[in-house]
Amino acid sequence: MIPPPVDRLVDQLARLPGVGRRTATRLAFHIIDHEDDYARDLAASLVEAADGVVLCPSCGFLTDVEPCRLCTDTRRDDSILCVVEGTPEVVALEGTGAYHGRYHTLGGVLSPLEGIGPDQLRVASLVRRVDAGGVVEVVVATRPSVDGEATAHFLAGLLKDKGVSVTRIASGIPMGASLEHADQVTLARALEGRRPVE
Amino acid sequence: MIPPPVDRLVDQLARLPGVGRRTATRLAFHIIDHEDDYARDLAASLVEAADGVVLCPSCGFLTDVEPCRLCTDTRRDDSILCVVEGTPEVVALEGTGAYHGRYHTLGGVLSPLEGIGPDQLRVASLVRRVDAGGVVEVVVATRPSVDGEATAHFLAGLLKDKGVSVTRIASGIPMGASLEHADQVTLARALEGRRPVE
Repeated sequence: MIPPPVDRLVDQLARLPGVGRRTATRLAFHIIDHEDDYARDLAASLVEAADGVVLCPSCGFLTDVEPCRLCTDTRRDDSILCVVEGTPEVVALEGTGAYHGRYHTLGGVLSPLEGIGPDQLRVASLVRRVDAGGVVEVVVATRPSVDGEATAHFLAGLLKDKGVSVTRIASGIPMGASLEHADQVTLARALEGRRPVE
Repeated sequence: MIPPPVDRLVDQLARLPGVGRRTATRLAFHIIDHEDDYARDLAASLVEAADGVVLCPSCGFLTDVEPCRLCTDTRRDDSILCVVEGTPEVVALEGTGAYHGRYHTLGGVLSPLEGIGPDQLRVASLVRRVDAGGVVEVVVATRPSVDGEATAHFLAGLLKDKGVSVTRIASGIPMGASLEHADQVTLARALEGRRPVE
């Protein structure tokens, strides 16, 4: 009953994260029912983004200029390098306004089960950046999961004789959350990571 | 910091229903980070849908053939016509498997506040279909809201001397829901619409 072109659009939309077939159908109808040229405008901006955006050859962040604006911004601190999984994490950290160093985007985390080893990530270019000198601290900001922790330990081992300190972001109770509802591992981490009250 | 082409894609994605800027940003990164040609595939299916899909000249349903498959399906009952707001409602009703008549898609409901009168909806073509003969019952399946009810009453008035019975879908307690949590209007409707136990 649904026209094949709409069905194919639903298939494509259903590939979006968090979008099931039901939502994809609703989105497809909305897009097509729209009076103005929304479908074409969206298509044009998709092609424009696919054409005009690359990964920064230095840090791996999405960019339309090479190297990216984060790498060329002279106000940033060259001595500290924050290692993240991907672009969304850079955006999240920038949103805090609390970090002014450089970034290095791995493109994921080590995951032996999914066949993701160091060669599938931007690990070699991280080592090259550290070897090039000027970096004093590498903050590993991968997520606090089994794979994220393993990646942090792997990178710490890899960089240990290079004269940089390798640090890890804190794991603990999120602001405003209750200890009662925290899982045991998070609670244990919060205890382990305790610091003097200033 | 975010490349302008990605920003423009976020703007377009944020026009989707239920998608705020934060979600749109997440979707944009996912689309662009994708290894294969997802952005281009999605763009192509949007253009294909925009090019290949029209509203059925008879019933107003989205279709790639004219008239649509619902209008030309000879197994359907010509004597009953279900009036709905749009394409998603047709899909929902078809999903029940409980309806085998024809459809007429209005393209919305009457809404004086938004400047939507009978001329902005497919009302004239509904009257023409009824005038053409063969229709015994018109089921008005607009939503049970102020505008949806007003639309149903307006259509009933318009069709009253044309020898068709105009009916309205039932409004009441949804299956599985509790009376305790139903709003007063719904509960009153459920009482009003009571039927003999079979």
